[in-house]
Amino acid sequence: MQMKLTPKSEIDVRISRLQEKLRELTLDGTLILLNSDMFYFSGTVQTSYLYVPVSGDPVLMIKKSLQRGRNESPLKNIVSLESPKEIPAILSTFGYVRFNKIGLELDVLPVNLYKRYQKIFHNSQFLDISPVIKDIRAIKSPYEIELLRDALSVIDQAHRAVPTFLREGMLEIELAALFEAEMRKRGYSGCCKMRAFNQDLFLGNTCTGNSASTPSFFDGPVGGTGVSVTHPHGAGWKKVCRNEVVYIDYTCVVHGYTGDQTRIFCIGELNQQMEKAFDAALLIQSEIIKAIKPGTPAEEPYLMAVKLAEEMGYKDHFMGYMKDKVRFIGHGIGLELDEFPILAKGLKTPILPGMTFALEPKFVFSEGAIGIENSFVMTEKGPEYLSVTPNAITYIE
Amino acid sequence: MQMKLTPKSEIDVRISRLQEKLRELTLDGTLILLNSDMFYFSGTVQTSYLYVPVSGDPVLMIKKSLQRGRNESPLKNIVSLESPKEIPAILSTFGYVRFNKIGLELDVLPVNLYKRYQKIFHNSQFLDISPVIKDIRAIKSPYEIELLRDALSVIDQAHRAVPTFLREGMLEIELAALFEAEMRKRGYSGCCKMRAFNQDLFLGNTCTGNSASTPSFFDGPVGGTGVSVTHPHGAGWKKVCRNEVVYIDYTCVVHGYTGDQTRIFCIGELNQQMEKAFDAALLIQSEIIKAIKPGTPAEEPYLMAVKLAEEMGYKDHFMGYMKDKVRFIGHGIGLELDEFPILAKGLKTPILPGMTFALEPKFVFSEGAIGIENSFVMTEKGPEYLSVTPNAITYIE
Repeated sequence: MQMKLTPKSEIDVRISRLQEKLRELTLDGTLILLNSDMFYFSGTVQTSYLYVPVSGDPVLMIKKSLQRGRNESPLKNIVSLESPKEIPAILSTFGYVRFNKIGLELDVLPVNLYKRYQKIFHNSQFLDISPVIKDIRAIKSPYEIELLRDALSVIDQAHRAVPTFLREGMLEIELAALFEAEMRKRGYSGCCKMRAFNQDLFLGNTCTGNSASTPSFFDGPVGGTGVSVTHPHGAGWKKVCRNEVVYIDYTCVVHGYTGDQTRIFCIGELNQQMEKAFDAALLIQSEIIKAIKPGTPAEEPYLMAVKLAEEMGYKDHFMGYMKDKVRFIGHGIGLELDEFPILAKGLKTPILPGMTFALEPKFVFSEGAIGIENSFVMTEKGPEYLSVTPNAITYIE
Repeated sequence: MQMKLTPKSEIDVRISRLQEKLRELTLDGTLILLNSDMFYFSGTVQTSYLYVPVSGDPVLMIKKSLQRGRNESPLKNIVSLESPKEIPAILSTFGYVRFNKIGLELDVLPVNLYKRYQKIFHNSQFLDISPVIKDIRAIKSPYEIELLRDALSVIDQAHRAVPTFLREGMLEIELAALFEAEMRKRGYSGCCKMRAFNQDLFLGNTCTGNSASTPSFFDGPVGGTGVSVTHPHGAGWKKVCRNEVVYIDYTCVVHGYTGDQTRIFCIGELNQQMEKAFDAALLIQSEIIKAIKPGTPAEEPYLMAVKLAEEMGYKDHFMGYMKDKVRFIGHGIGLELDEFPILAKGLKTPILPGMTFALEPKFVFSEGAIGIENSFVMTEKGPEYLSVTPNAITYIE
């Protein structure tokens, strides 16, 4: 693996799609501040401020590090700045002087910083540009899909390595540490990113047996005790036992792109109820894959899955235990873990070619969580697996 | 190690200190939303909304998971809610009906969520409560200091383990993965937290030789290439060589509390320039420890350090390489990595007993970064080490 710089052709297309939306919204331009959006439109992550005008070349203003930004970004206009106060003056030297209506990422920008920009652009009206950015980012280019394949290849290697270190009596947190190290040493860049406020997530979730039914704040189907009440999710201090589910659900961020998959392991054997539930999850997955096509509304896989789960008698267990359920069956993946499309009830936006998503039919019982999760890309012909790991429970003696 | 629930006596004191400030600011109450503040004042992290009135018992309203919140929080009033829209109605059942002026964490709350609260409390004036919370949280109780000692004990064990796996020719990212796993398996809870916008940080920074002088966006003295341009900081794809600095600067979050320390390793030997710089860092550390007392202004350690560094001829290398310097020499540590006090130029607030902080005199040269970082608590008698690892370079054959 090595560092990959984003090609200029990629950045050019992204900027041009953004400018088209700026025209539709009659904006004069937009500031881009969030690291993940900054990377997407500039090819670099610095302490910096990117202005994309409705037409003309963007201007990347960098506080730290100018040198690194210039090495990494294919943008033409990259200049130094000391404080965001200088932004209007810098932009005027590029001929950008009209700021009646400008975009800001209002879903993530903290209020105090927003107030600062209200002072800097004191006559401007601000509009939330994030929905536009999320729509643009939802459709991945072939270049981005290749980066995602690298992420899924790394997590595949980690999942395949589990039998070499999973042992009865080890702590959940020890198992998690070893699994995470398998991904990390192969290039997991750290910091799985979510756009939603307060959705603290470490790299993923290892839990075993009944700890999976410990509820959690996290907006996902499976809880886990965590090692501390400050981080109450995922691996905890429980020992791994024989004949129970070992649930390993992780993200894998490589080149910034987030793969996501879940596999089930067991030392010994699982009871029939759990094996049956695993088969039910596979069935839901395969029925959804058969059914969805370009244009399918985002809620349809969720509605199908709920119907199938209820028909099979899993109403109280599908996507969470009893009352602590989540109302989705999948989510977009890319530079963030909570991208569009969200496969949830009430969302009718179509799933389009180029969209990448994780699909995760899962059941939670008092004795453990079981199910499957894979990453996919929608193609003209339907969904295609990005995950390469076999869809099976791995049993260990 | 095991999960620790926050004693009721701790929460009571915290709430009462907050209420005292609410009275001074003539607020009717404050909403607490951010996970780290939520934990501090309630003892639990759920998808929830905590209202602390200027007087009377707080009300914790939980969406997910009510059951877990009730198990973990010693607060008296813990109720279920489906949507934040219900907050005023719920609060009125507890007799809280006056919301003329209420606090919100405006340094972290995104604009779109703020707008939602403006609708929910449509006649209220909002004030940023975060400076007050940060002041309160800056002074740690003996209970909190013990939790921090656990974090420093875990990172001590990880730093001591380095000679068992540091090998010539391994990749920086492999070394990072193994070091991180040492902390993780002993209870590092994941998600080192920073309050500042966009300060993505994984667990810390491993870099070797000249990769340490690769500049970065990160608000710290040492860069590193990272494994990807999306996460351009810390360990990368460089191989570890003989006779170069191996710089291992990590946070360690245990029970939610963040220890922070840096140690230097070397396979073979370092040249005289690097050894001299390490001694200079130790000298700066010891001079600061001798000089500071309860009441010392926060900027003083930084000013002292700059003066000493310049006298010793390290002007271009102190706290960053050439132009990419940072302007501080330490920072508060606790539930977040960027707490008060910030030991930076211009900050005259006194360092008080109970404040916990990391002190990190470091130098960056083109061939590597070197220095020391330890965690401390200010006591009535002066600063006391929380770090327990010897202050020395570890040489490996």
